[in-house]
Amino acid sequence: MSTFFIESEANARVKRWKKLVDQPRQIKKEGATVIEGIHLLEVALAQTRYCVSSVMIDEKGATPEARVLAENLAQTHHAHLYEMSASVFRSICPVENGVGVMAEISLEKAFTLEDVLDEDVLYLDGVQDAGNAGTLIRTALAAGVQTIVASPKTVSLFSAKVLRAAMGAHFAAKIVENVTIEAFKAHYQGVIYAADARGGKNIYAHSEALKKTSVAWVLGAEGPGVSLEALECVQERFYIPIEAATESLNVGVAGALCLFEMRRVRC
Amino acid sequence: MSTFFIESEANARVKRWKKLVDQPRQIKKEGATVIEGIHLLEVALAQTRYCVSSVMIDEKGATPEARVLAENLAQTHHAHLYEMSASVFRSICPVENGVGVMAEISLEKAFTLEDVLDEDVLYLDGVQDAGNAGTLIRTALAAGVQTIVASPKTVSLFSAKVLRAAMGAHFAAKIVENVTIEAFKAHYQGVIYAADARGGKNIYAHSEALKKTSVAWVLGAEGPGVSLEALECVQERFYIPIEAATESLNVGVAGALCLFEMRRVRC
Repeated sequence: MSTFFIESEANARVKRWKKLVDQPRQIKKEGATVIEGIHLLEVALAQTRYCVSSVMIDEKGATPEARVLAENLAQTHHAHLYEMSASVFRSICPVENGVGVMAEISLEKAFTLEDVLDEDVLYLDGVQDAGNAGTLIRTALAAGVQTIVASPKTVSLFSAKVLRAAMGAHFAAKIVENVTIEAFKAHYQGVIYAADARGGKNIYAHSEALKKTSVAWVLGAEGPGVSLEALECVQERFYIPIEAATESLNVGVAGALCLFEMRRVRC
Repeated sequence: MSTFFIESEANARVKRWKKLVDQPRQIKKEGATVIEGIHLLEVALAQTRYCVSSVMIDEKGATPEARVLAENLAQTHHAHLYEMSASVFRSICPVENGVGVMAEISLEKAFTLEDVLDEDVLYLDGVQDAGNAGTLIRTALAAGVQTIVASPKTVSLFSAKVLRAAMGAHFAAKIVENVTIEAFKAHYQGVIYAADARGGKNIYAHSEALKKTSVAWVLGAEGPGVSLEALECVQERFYIPIEAATESLNVGVAGALCLFEMRRVRC
């Protein structure tokens, strides 16, 4: 572990980290992202798939706990430790009033479609809201669905906001991004269902369909819902019966209800 | 309908609206709140319980649709219409890049505990996150539970962020705020259950309990969960069986699963 000091926002590494945080498309381009805070760093430390390449620390502002964790993480992953002034740190950091620690992780070993062809899947079809996407990843893991596949139009799942909302679930999940629904359908070995408020079958009246071995659930964007292209690729549409004359469900809630209903009927 | 022009941020009404938006505790003090945007104003127009006292419009920035709605709302509710410059409007408005219309509604006719004693209830025990609270209100309505009761420590349910997250569900709900769990228990005529990740009974294995006529579900704060005071007031605790070694569920998701499981077994 080597320690470096960075004092200027003009530093090339600082500029790069800032881009990774502020411009989610950079994440794919660089094959890396920045994580922040005790919980995410602890989860990163406990796993071995994603390599930690740098650990960044707020020279004076880091809490003692954050500092110990930072050093531990840098040592374990043979990563460089960068100490920086509060102002440089804040210029990168995606949250205000954090504990003063971040890390860069490499996404080189990210999963591919081939890794997940016969598993239960949550397929995000253009989900744009980072909070919803993160909650869906967290919920899927809790429901026993480890694989998340995302369409090209879905928010970048390794962006700071999604990572925060998922509370570390990324590191236990198999996340595959940038897969069109056509490519998914062409290779996936299970059945593909859509959660669609506009019609289909009542999910609570069709338990048998949920007992199949490999099921992929397609969840659509806030507002428009599942895209027409995706609807053409699914075997069945299911709706959650809601009270008449009420707003449709938030996509995070709709996803949770589908995945836990599947979990319930399989038990 | 009278129209007034406001050109200064120093105007007493502007200061008052700004406080209602920025300081949620003012909402209770004044017995009023500010709503924003086409959807919330349309819902406000379609209901009769909450009186609209003022409609505010961005003189030049309002879209034609927003202007028509504003005039319609002011006329229907015999409310004053306030036209203001973009900068004054923006100094109040809780969202950036809105459509240029807001309204003040009176909460004088808000529901009281006596109105809801034998209904199904969602009781929010210190839920702090506005997005979660709003999603829970929206979800409860969709699940057929119209009544939301909130503890004194819960976020102000008529604040701008909660209103936005609930997408208009407030106006179809019976919302009673500032009710301690002890007061609730003392008067409520149904059974009180807690959704508690720490223990109790598996919700999916106890359908009978969910079939009772009046059920109140207590949902706790993000992080700590249901408070000890509340746990002492409930007849039963239920947990949602999640995968081992995963994060607990977001409170909005946990609430959705409880309410829809109740809906499912009752059908």
